[in-house]
Amino acid sequence: MTPHLKTALTGPLLSLEKHLIEEMANIEHWFRTQWLEHASPFYASVDLRNAGFKLAPVDTNLFPSGFNNLNPDFLSLSVQATTVAIEKICPEAHRLLIVPENHTRNIYYIKNLFELKNILKKSGLDVRIGSLDKTMLEPVEIAVENNKTLLIEPLKRVKNRLVLENKILGNFDACAILLNNDLSSGIPDILKNIEQNLIPPLHAGWAIRRKSQHFKAYDEIVKSFSEFIKVDPWLINPYFDHANHIDFHMKQGEDELSYKVDQILDKIKLKYKEYNIKHEPFVIVKADAGTYGMGIMTVKQGNELKNLNRKSKNKMSVIKEGLGVSEVIIQEGVYSEECINEAVAEPVIYLIDHFVIGGFYRVHTTRGKNENLNAPGMHFVPLAFETSCSTPETDQSPLSTPNRFYAYGVIARLALLAASIELEANDPANT
Amino acid sequence: MTPHLKTALTGPLLSLEKHLIEEMANIEHWFRTQWLEHASPFYASVDLRNAGFKLAPVDTNLFPSGFNNLNPDFLSLSVQATTVAIEKICPEAHRLLIVPENHTRNIYYIKNLFELKNILKKSGLDVRIGSLDKTMLEPVEIAVENNKTLLIEPLKRVKNRLVLENKILGNFDACAILLNNDLSSGIPDILKNIEQNLIPPLHAGWAIRRKSQHFKAYDEIVKSFSEFIKVDPWLINPYFDHANHIDFHMKQGEDELSYKVDQILDKIKLKYKEYNIKHEPFVIVKADAGTYGMGIMTVKQGNELKNLNRKSKNKMSVIKEGLGVSEVIIQEGVYSEECINEAVAEPVIYLIDHFVIGGFYRVHTTRGKNENLNAPGMHFVPLAFETSCSTPETDQSPLSTPNRFYAYGVIARLALLAASIELEANDPANT
Repeated sequence: MTPHLKTALTGPLLSLEKHLIEEMANIEHWFRTQWLEHASPFYASVDLRNAGFKLAPVDTNLFPSGFNNLNPDFLSLSVQATTVAIEKICPEAHRLLIVPENHTRNIYYIKNLFELKNILKKSGLDVRIGSLDKTMLEPVEIAVENNKTLLIEPLKRVKNRLVLENKILGNFDACAILLNNDLSSGIPDILKNIEQNLIPPLHAGWAIRRKSQHFKAYDEIVKSFSEFIKVDPWLINPYFDHANHIDFHMKQGEDELSYKVDQILDKIKLKYKEYNIKHEPFVIVKADAGTYGMGIMTVKQGNELKNLNRKSKNKMSVIKEGLGVSEVIIQEGVYSEECINEAVAEPVIYLIDHFVIGGFYRVHTTRGKNENLNAPGMHFVPLAFETSCSTPETDQSPLSTPNRFYAYGVIARLALLAASIELEANDPANT
Repeated sequence: MTPHLKTALTGPLLSLEKHLIEEMANIEHWFRTQWLEHASPFYASVDLRNAGFKLAPVDTNLFPSGFNNLNPDFLSLSVQATTVAIEKICPEAHRLLIVPENHTRNIYYIKNLFELKNILKKSGLDVRIGSLDKTMLEPVEIAVENNKTLLIEPLKRVKNRLVLENKILGNFDACAILLNNDLSSGIPDILKNIEQNLIPPLHAGWAIRRKSQHFKAYDEIVKSFSEFIKVDPWLINPYFDHANHIDFHMKQGEDELSYKVDQILDKIKLKYKEYNIKHEPFVIVKADAGTYGMGIMTVKQGNELKNLNRKSKNKMSVIKEGLGVSEVIIQEGVYSEECINEAVAEPVIYLIDHFVIGGFYRVHTTRGKNENLNAPGMHFVPLAFETSCSTPETDQSPLSTPNRFYAYGVIARLALLAASIELEANDPANT
């Protein structure tokens, strides 16, 4: 057991957070009703931003890494939630194969895989890891820490099954495959038409998923939820729009993008006026598909996008795995008013099945309150939540940490519901 | 958050515990398959005894109290498990009414109720407490601790619904009723033919339940489980028999009882010989229905039961609420080899739905290794488990606490499965 980490959150709980805690029984009932109609993704992480006056998700990851950043005291919560998920999706499963990202030289990612494997093992599965990396010909054992190692084996396809072939450990034919690879570079042939249960399904990958579709689904969810608890939906929902056929190098689509940016900025200005907020509005323009904070910029005026220098054009044109960007989402920027030791902090909430199982703060000492904290090359400090998100105290001071975390858990679950609806809409079986 | 409590368990992990940890993936798969066929009781606590060579349940309580004895660090685990249970049993429920035991002057029981209510509230239910006590005419507010109070209101029946009538707080018509009253004194009329969902059902109460039926179901479960993991079923199962039409005062049924006791003692002797165990065998004779450690004695020879003095006769003849004993269970005694600070300790495992959510040790400084630790008037010290039962470390030393607790969680879940089968068999809807 590690010592409890202190998350130094100060400032009064905003009225929204108070309202969410007061309405807890109703909110939980509302979620129960929702989950009767929608199947939760197997797992997710949700990046939130807390502006004091506004608390909103800015990104929902359906292939979460960073399990190593969670408070190990709450491991049992992850194990229990995973047991529930496995019972729903594949109760008969004995063996599970994790298909990871290819960047196995990133020790943080390896630690994440180690923890993810640990959670799955403790839920009672025989777990091995099979890599898509075609350059991997032999199993590789990677040092994690404290004499612990992680074995990654090359993935083989035999007819319509993914297997591992290993003369020492024995072959491995899993009942279910867990993807921890977001398929940014498209769906590899080896994963197509697999007869094993793929979790999450292929259409959850960035080859098919679009952020704008996610936030469209989030719009619907927020509409229903905010009517139910009687709050202005804007307080938990960032404005957004999207634009296609963009080519930053060819200056293609710039006018339309610039126009849409100004439209969003105008809408934010009206809201800031309504709530008497003195900040300068900004938007985030980012790739509509993809992750890792690449292809992303902060914009305060539409015409900034018409005069991009070469560096900015390059930055905006390429995301992970060298893929080009032609579709972008324009998202209302949410200031982060959360600071830990004077550094800007962004909460990241982890979910397994429809349960919040923990979270951590991405803390960055050199970035501003209106910048993306999940940027390439950035070194954030992960700071695990010291309590769970499911134990608010209605009779405690509103400053108490469990109370703030409850609000985070509510917003993260709204984003998770949006992901469910998005996946249902994208499911090839439904079209 | 409270500090972690130290549970001082020493001694090598017995080979059974090692075997359970090694077989973890298979065992969890086995449980998953079982829970596809059986519905778990809403909640339970299981008293275990660890003799070093043997680890077995000695009692399974379907109306657990003692939630106040659990480690508050794992509250979120209880909340998550309760959410799962509510989603299965009554997803539409907004309001839940707890029907407690009548002994509201017992501060430990009040603390238990406070914690139980807290867990249910945090799972998103509006919770109030309605007492069966006919002498209660007005709501009573009872001090718990730290300025916290618990309100208990008199239960009213309106047609086929249990309700609370309260001019200040408003009336309360719950969707579901949670019994925390074991119905030792029979099923009160007010609870009969209720249209609300009663959790657990009335036939889970001691008015209908029999310990011998529970252990018969446990026999079946252990048969299947021990074949599956290839262990001698005796290592996790106490021998038992039962006898009816007993009247200790009238010396009725003594001969039969004495004969059956000797039969069990002979069977234990054979097993002790097989495993080269130097202890003297003993059995526990206790009321077949009922709880609270009343009507219970330790016996080492059948004829001890033929020469009971008046005090022993009285002790054996009456259980909770002054009810007479005419049916007894004769159960193989399991020595407790667990000691904390030289005091005998008995683990009690708590389950919500089919999840182990925690446990504590009943520690008693003046009782022997072969005595019942849950006796009337006894003052045990509750010592909360410092870790959860779901996070064993297969690569850690077998002495590690999480590993021992995993084994406890397995045996407790076998007892829970037995309770499921027992409840199915007793369900009036199935006959």
